[in-house]
Amino acid sequence: MSKFFNKRTKNLIPYVPGEQPKEGETFIKINTNECPYPPSPRVIEAICRSVNESLRLYPAPDAYVARKAFANKHKLPLECVFAGNGSDEVLAFSFLAFFDKNKKVLIPDITYSFYTVYCDLCEVEYKKISLKEDFTIDVDAFVREKGNVVIANPNAPTSMALDVGEIERILKAHPEDVVIIDEAYVDFGADSCIGLVDRYDNLLVVQTLSKSRALAGMRIGFACGSKELVDGLNRIKDSFNSYTLDRLAIVAAEAAIKDDEYYESVIEKIVSTRERVKSELVELGYQVLDSRTNFLFITHKEKNAEEIMGYLRANGVLVRHFKTYRIDNYLRITIGTDEEMDKFLSLIKDME
Amino acid sequence: MSKFFNKRTKNLIPYVPGEQPKEGETFIKINTNECPYPPSPRVIEAICRSVNESLRLYPAPDAYVARKAFANKHKLPLECVFAGNGSDEVLAFSFLAFFDKNKKVLIPDITYSFYTVYCDLCEVEYKKISLKEDFTIDVDAFVREKGNVVIANPNAPTSMALDVGEIERILKAHPEDVVIIDEAYVDFGADSCIGLVDRYDNLLVVQTLSKSRALAGMRIGFACGSKELVDGLNRIKDSFNSYTLDRLAIVAAEAAIKDDEYYESVIEKIVSTRERVKSELVELGYQVLDSRTNFLFITHKEKNAEEIMGYLRANGVLVRHFKTYRIDNYLRITIGTDEEMDKFLSLIKDME
Repeated sequence: MSKFFNKRTKNLIPYVPGEQPKEGETFIKINTNECPYPPSPRVIEAICRSVNESLRLYPAPDAYVARKAFANKHKLPLECVFAGNGSDEVLAFSFLAFFDKNKKVLIPDITYSFYTVYCDLCEVEYKKISLKEDFTIDVDAFVREKGNVVIANPNAPTSMALDVGEIERILKAHPEDVVIIDEAYVDFGADSCIGLVDRYDNLLVVQTLSKSRALAGMRIGFACGSKELVDGLNRIKDSFNSYTLDRLAIVAAEAAIKDDEYYESVIEKIVSTRERVKSELVELGYQVLDSRTNFLFITHKEKNAEEIMGYLRANGVLVRHFKTYRIDNYLRITIGTDEEMDKFLSLIKDME
Repeated sequence: MSKFFNKRTKNLIPYVPGEQPKEGETFIKINTNECPYPPSPRVIEAICRSVNESLRLYPAPDAYVARKAFANKHKLPLECVFAGNGSDEVLAFSFLAFFDKNKKVLIPDITYSFYTVYCDLCEVEYKKISLKEDFTIDVDAFVREKGNVVIANPNAPTSMALDVGEIERILKAHPEDVVIIDEAYVDFGADSCIGLVDRYDNLLVVQTLSKSRALAGMRIGFACGSKELVDGLNRIKDSFNSYTLDRLAIVAAEAAIKDDEYYESVIEKIVSTRERVKSELVELGYQVLDSRTNFLFITHKEKNAEEIMGYLRANGVLVRHFKTYRIDNYLRITIGTDEEMDKFLSLIKDME
């Protein structure tokens, strides 16, 4: 390890994102939970209108029009909304702003694996709270334990969701702690906690336009919470990078948030495909968790998940496998188009 | 201050960028060192070609085509090039990767004010090295003092540059330290240190496309250095945000780096305007430092800089003033188009 690295850099084990095919490779890509349908035509138009001379000028440092659209949609005051370069950046800023050595962060033992990486980046200790036997989050344990809280709801890669009432129990038990609810997948069938923002000053809800808004390529995330939590995020952002969203991402965000009609139909299609694929997999003997997301988390008692992944990859289909405690015989299958899922299902059947 | 903030967040004094006019305000904007000319038509075309369905997919996490173009231009191996969301993000990652409590960072006392903010963000101590009487960087002091080094070359807001040989003296004196040279303005008349990268494993050169490549609105920065320093940046990036450049920023970067011909003519125009404006200001009794940048740093023995700024603003022209030790009677004037600078000069003359 280089003599120039500080302790943080030496100790980090960076997050590894799902495989991105190289130029020219043509996979059915159901491994990184992207949306199989294009962004709204209004988003494309909004970006095109902004590709002009104005790119020579800095963007609005507060990403005003994007935040305004998000605030309007969710009936929040503007000062309760923060925008960042993807929800990953928003999460990184949150860890930098609120967590430190003096208090542990409570995290489910099986969840988005970036959370523990953020802890290492910020030199914060964490405590993993085991999911229950059925892979649901153990709300009682989160109520009981002391510390700040980070929960993905729905959780990934399990795909399962908590009710808002259960999140509220956690919020009430942690009035002196920050509770971050990462709602990356909430639009596919779970209930959002945004309605609790005005009652709980310790709640920060994080969302992204990468999944249900089909804009992974534009890197746009939001957080909303009490004015003081959003102030904290702004303090970090303004000490890190004054302008984290470029001019095109800002207008893309505004247009995407405003076009509910288009995206509702996209979500409907994905949910309907999800339920069909789930039924077929169950018929083939797979266990499939109750998904409130755009992916399925599946396992088979008699088949090896890693082998299935290899077989699918060899046949042009990318899915995600995590070599991790408790879930190493599971696969995470993003819901693609009906055609893509038919190809996936026919490969799965051929394997029998 | 909120009970939810950690010590870092409580203690930070965030950077304040130059004023960005609100929608509908029409200022002559010579306050944030943007390029007065549009980006290359090839950049516009490259972005337009990419505004399509593919925005639903994540970008290449390594920003491959952008890094490849930068590496080719500067004859560097690809693994010696890092790309980030503006040079501010690249700098923030550098501080996070290489600096810690055990070693001070040496910084000129008058320079880009974000450097000390990064120190506070990363909880790193710094020592300010006074510029010499003539506002040049005191190379002997940087050679003599112990610590990591961060220098903007040309320096901002002074506009003055060091020769590469002087930077090399500093590199030789600090073999165990990281030396960051921030070349945001280098294309306007200074010599780059990139040629030293293969000989000094402690050198990290940071550049941006915001100034000479007219792409402030797209947020693109680079660092180049030894493979190990770039590895360190990647470790931090991959523990912070897997994809910091969106798909459009990546193709914009590639096209901008490749179109030297267009940008050489833009730089030539800016330098020629700069020299003309400088002469006229000198004739009006202003002292103007020797600029190797796209801005002038000026003062007048009998006039109050803050009052001039207010007068200009009231007349529709934004310039930058820093209420800071030693430079509080100076103004930083970005070089705009000839028409913009004529308006500025005529206001300055009217004030006489």
